[in-house]
Amino acid sequence: MLIGLSEAACFLKDCDDVVVLTHQSPDGDCIGAGFALKDILDSFGKRCRVICCDPFPKRYDFMTETGCGEDFEPKTVVAVDIADNQLMGSLRETYGDRVQLCIDHHISNTGYAERTFLNAEASATCEIIYELAKEMNVQISRHCAACIYTGIATDTGCFKYDCTTARCHEITAELMRQFDINYALINRNMFDVKSVGRMKMESRAVELMETFCGGKLTMICITAEAMEKLGVDGNDLEGCANLPLQAEGVEVGIMMKEREKDVYKISMRSAGDVNVSEICQTLGGGGHAKAAGCLLKGSVDEVKAQLLKAVGRVLGE
Amino acid sequence: MLIGLSEAACFLKDCDDVVVLTHQSPDGDCIGAGFALKDILDSFGKRCRVICCDPFPKRYDFMTETGCGEDFEPKTVVAVDIADNQLMGSLRETYGDRVQLCIDHHISNTGYAERTFLNAEASATCEIIYELAKEMNVQISRHCAACIYTGIATDTGCFKYDCTTARCHEITAELMRQFDINYALINRNMFDVKSVGRMKMESRAVELMETFCGGKLTMICITAEAMEKLGVDGNDLEGCANLPLQAEGVEVGIMMKEREKDVYKISMRSAGDVNVSEICQTLGGGGHAKAAGCLLKGSVDEVKAQLLKAVGRVLGE
Repeated sequence: MLIGLSEAACFLKDCDDVVVLTHQSPDGDCIGAGFALKDILDSFGKRCRVICCDPFPKRYDFMTETGCGEDFEPKTVVAVDIADNQLMGSLRETYGDRVQLCIDHHISNTGYAERTFLNAEASATCEIIYELAKEMNVQISRHCAACIYTGIATDTGCFKYDCTTARCHEITAELMRQFDINYALINRNMFDVKSVGRMKMESRAVELMETFCGGKLTMICITAEAMEKLGVDGNDLEGCANLPLQAEGVEVGIMMKEREKDVYKISMRSAGDVNVSEICQTLGGGGHAKAAGCLLKGSVDEVKAQLLKAVGRVLGE
Repeated sequence: MLIGLSEAACFLKDCDDVVVLTHQSPDGDCIGAGFALKDILDSFGKRCRVICCDPFPKRYDFMTETGCGEDFEPKTVVAVDIADNQLMGSLRETYGDRVQLCIDHHISNTGYAERTFLNAEASATCEIIYELAKEMNVQISRHCAACIYTGIATDTGCFKYDCTTARCHEITAELMRQFDINYALINRNMFDVKSVGRMKMESRAVELMETFCGGKLTMICITAEAMEKLGVDGNDLEGCANLPLQAEGVEVGIMMKEREKDVYKISMRSAGDVNVSEICQTLGGGGHAKAAGCLLKGSVDEVKAQLLKAVGRVLGE
């Protein structure tokens, strides 16, 4: 059942002994939303605990350091930023069909919860938490403000992506007027900092980048042999899929990783109007218009040729 | 003479045949401010021309494509975002002591103009142009809005740096509510895109990065020999000085380039509280607290040792 802002606020005011679920591979928005909501519920004297199937990465310590909350038998289960109960990971068995309220901004939300407060226009779930706090007449804390800011900043790429809205700039302005937080330091840690190993790995991946179709297609192909040479495995390369899109003039960027002998995992990204989901569908995969993928079999040269043909056709080459 | 918002607005309403000066090596903020101001003056039917000693880089075409304005004998000279008339470059001889109004946000403004409207709290000169348009009761155009957005975004690193204010988020929200502009595309072109050559060059520079002081100091040393090997010259390396600061846990990042045999140009950056200007002063250089430099003579090992000693002392190593 889809519910509105005032109903969601009433539910939260009335509930008690709340477990707040965040999604697997937790990011700035679900952690921010979880800990901001905990602050809000704490201010009503309710018991609340934030949980996740995975550990919270260290760079989010400034949000989690207030503690996840004590152990108790939950009466209420709330999910934040979880579009599908599959994304609960190992917590799905316990909580997958027990969520009484889901607060989310993903249009793809599957409606697995008893009640869903969905605002698909919100840039981040943290934006919704801010509106809920206002509706509940809560004076948020400095820590809560930092959590909300972080969720908005991380989900919008620091106000860079096209999910950035006027409303999220307004909320940020309100937070900045009220709270003296080191926003620049948060941003540095969220966006600018990498481990030295990651920097070196990315630089080696860039070294392998090739351009095709007059610069409109860039491709980084990492064979098993190259991975061994770089001293990395497939997991280390997570998040590298956007690297080929950095090239000026590129329309489609491809990251190609050898998963097993002659089997390649393809990540395809679009910088503009090309729908890479459609291209990947012709290759047996799928995804979103700007980020899609597929699995291809063959020698490195065969797979490259297949990709070049499929993308080249769309680019009119 | 320092003047206020209403005086500056009156001056602009009364003036005619205006040349708007932008600074050398023009960036998003001075180009944005120049072309936004031209739009505003155009709307009053005034003649206006935007000039610069250097060509406007191609990635700013969306701002400059409306044209710099026709040629005429100026009656009024306005400077935007120019803190010192030295920054006019070759235009200084003609206009250096002829500026009737300077609009700027640099606290370091030397006061070279007849009137200066300075708002050092503004994140960008474009923010001031927006306030001027409001004061002048001008309904700005979509193009003007794109210019103002670009100036604010580029000077704040897309709302990332600590010069970002609540006010600049508010202005951005107002622009987004009024104008359907492809903000994400502007941001991609301003922040995410590099030439393939630049990507490869940076990746090779990262390969050369060394860490010291338990990771608190990172250094990239590029000798003349390395430059030849990379196929780049010193100019190609401009803007690489921030690369060493990307490393997690780093406090001071150093880029060291061999300018001539055994003469090294040192660029030093601080990620946090270390004042690199003070360090560089002890080495005969200077600069700002977070970005400074100096010139050191000696073999590569001698220069490195000198730097390690000076920085290590401050880092308590």
